[in-house]
Amino acid sequence: MPEKIPDNSVGLVTPQRQSFAQALKLDCGRSLPEYELIYETYGTLNAQASNAVLICHALSGDHHAAGYHSLEDRKPGWWDSCIGPGKPIDTHRFFVVSLNNLGGCKGSTGPNTPNPVTGKLYGADFPMVTVRDWVESQARLAASLGIQQWAAVIGGSLGGMQALQWTLQYPEQVRNAVVIAAAPKLSAQNIAFNEVARQAILSDPDFHAGRYYEHDTVPRRGLMLARMLGHITYLSDDAMRAKFGRELREGKLNFGFDEAEFQVESYLHYQGRSFVDRFDANTYLLMTKALDYFDPASLHEHDLTRALAGVKAKFLVVSFTSDWRFSPARSREIVQALLRNRKTVSYMEVTANQGHDAFLLEIPQYINGFSAYMQHVAREAEQHG
Amino acid sequence: MPEKIPDNSVGLVTPQRQSFAQALKLDCGRSLPEYELIYETYGTLNAQASNAVLICHALSGDHHAAGYHSLEDRKPGWWDSCIGPGKPIDTHRFFVVSLNNLGGCKGSTGPNTPNPVTGKLYGADFPMVTVRDWVESQARLAASLGIQQWAAVIGGSLGGMQALQWTLQYPEQVRNAVVIAAAPKLSAQNIAFNEVARQAILSDPDFHAGRYYEHDTVPRRGLMLARMLGHITYLSDDAMRAKFGRELREGKLNFGFDEAEFQVESYLHYQGRSFVDRFDANTYLLMTKALDYFDPASLHEHDLTRALAGVKAKFLVVSFTSDWRFSPARSREIVQALLRNRKTVSYMEVTANQGHDAFLLEIPQYINGFSAYMQHVAREAEQHG
Repeated sequence: MPEKIPDNSVGLVTPQRQSFAQALKLDCGRSLPEYELIYETYGTLNAQASNAVLICHALSGDHHAAGYHSLEDRKPGWWDSCIGPGKPIDTHRFFVVSLNNLGGCKGSTGPNTPNPVTGKLYGADFPMVTVRDWVESQARLAASLGIQQWAAVIGGSLGGMQALQWTLQYPEQVRNAVVIAAAPKLSAQNIAFNEVARQAILSDPDFHAGRYYEHDTVPRRGLMLARMLGHITYLSDDAMRAKFGRELREGKLNFGFDEAEFQVESYLHYQGRSFVDRFDANTYLLMTKALDYFDPASLHEHDLTRALAGVKAKFLVVSFTSDWRFSPARSREIVQALLRNRKTVSYMEVTANQGHDAFLLEIPQYINGFSAYMQHVAREAEQHG
Repeated sequence: MPEKIPDNSVGLVTPQRQSFAQALKLDCGRSLPEYELIYETYGTLNAQASNAVLICHALSGDHHAAGYHSLEDRKPGWWDSCIGPGKPIDTHRFFVVSLNNLGGCKGSTGPNTPNPVTGKLYGADFPMVTVRDWVESQARLAASLGIQQWAAVIGGSLGGMQALQWTLQYPEQVRNAVVIAAAPKLSAQNIAFNEVARQAILSDPDFHAGRYYEHDTVPRRGLMLARMLGHITYLSDDAMRAKFGRELREGKLNFGFDEAEFQVESYLHYQGRSFVDRFDANTYLLMTKALDYFDPASLHEHDLTRALAGVKAKFLVVSFTSDWRFSPARSREIVQALLRNRKTVSYMEVTANQGHDAFLLEIPQYINGFSAYMQHVAREAEQHG
């Protein structure tokens, strides 16, 4: 529970829902006959609907990006560091929309929601979704909210890929894209890590080919392993060293396998265990595949410059020096491709030793640069209004 | 099967065994009442026993370092690239000893051998072994072979840690130590990867608390995951990109979880599956713990320079630029600590994009530098004789 809700918080928020009765054709060739999205909004849409900002979430994120659901909440939304009054995404100036993606597990239509055809939970029958599919579903949400053009589409990691995809898929509907700690496609190593995580889930006997809901169980072991592995890639080697070093949990070695001996083991166990209680394994699988599949250049003979030729948005691209999941070099590929197309792009390479997770942290260089860019976006939105 | 055994091969080799009836007291506080080591030798011990070289293996290695066990063997021993007539470890000049470590699964006393007390396989009852324990067991093997001083103790990765430990534990018995792609201790990130691998095995329902032999099964899923994860850390991001890129196994996405879609997934599956058929999960667990525990500086207030003050050996330390498991910086820590003690040390940082696994490959800069050093060791051994 927060002692009291801080002044720079969006405060108490209530998720909303929007149903879409029109079938959504997906990249995989299948369709969703209907779907529902859960979302939150912060701030006020101006009369001209020119100040709307879309937040796209990463692998394990959801619609609850800022504020609190109740006074009993221990923590605010996942990006509370950047969304709120006076924060980079200033809710005094912007109308912020944050949704749970299709295939998610926090309220939008996904594997843990009922399949209207069978009446049972989708489970393994939920179709594969791609970044393109998400943008399509988000565009319908924008329309339902009366938003014809986003002042900005913003996201980190997999969220950054969605922001980039928006500028390709609906170039007229995005004035600015903020692409943070992302990449234009996964590397073989990125895919390899995803595949080990997937195999951990798929090979868990409690996975039951994705139909574990019907067996009244969850693939705890597999999902825990996937999350532990993910966490290693979210932190830099340096950050892990600074945070845990080789410190022993009980001050001495116990020469056994039963208990964590080093603090870093204990941290990973905790991260793994707590994730299992709040996330769905089928969703985790879908999200990793969406990451693997994202590769807009593949439609243009693997030429990213050509892929980005049609974008209209202005860009802020941000990377973090110690991010080895999506290194600054990957962000610079996006920047270079935009520059070759003579697009307007700002690039900020933030010196930070926290690794990929830095995008969620209050690092002054990052917050200040991000704020400055967003103030420009806000002024533009007001002029546009 | 080799078409014909190459001229620069040690040829057909037969493993040998040595039993030790005297109890071995271990770091963990327990003792092995007796044990057996399986080993191979290549080349001829000279009359003065001055040309003996010890090869120490890494996590998944064994005693079969060079040559062939039969004409039907598809592949030679694991370090055939460096051991043989005219190779860096020249069997015309050296008497090479290569053993399977205690706790291994290829013939030395370990979890898959009988516990003399119970008559059943040790399984989970096999005690935890450390790098120090291995050196102790190897010193007894040296004595049994009439070797009072090694011309060189040589190893890569975990093998390099054993070579380093030899110079601390038996400084008079090592003239040269060749420490390749190693580190003076694991980082928090290294330990974290090991812990995910261990949890994959420990949480596999077929693990049965390490007593899977009695259940006539093996924790295939867990060991497979551990190996897949290991392989990611053995290769550099660049090497993976060069080897697999984002190439699709069937030329197109199939939007499913049943089959590997990208080549890199297929490679990892193969590596994981084939490992399960030739390696024991209990041994894998023990080896990762030996890695985690290795930290000679911890006995000297975490001062590596002080830890290495008493070494008598001359050193060759080798690292590979793209090795992110044990980066060149980790090797340089060893080099710096030796130099601060005014020890004789050669350091070679090999430009190679293959990652940690580079130490097993025939990279000219590496092979030439290693050969030059070993020729010097051979001349010294002959003078010593």
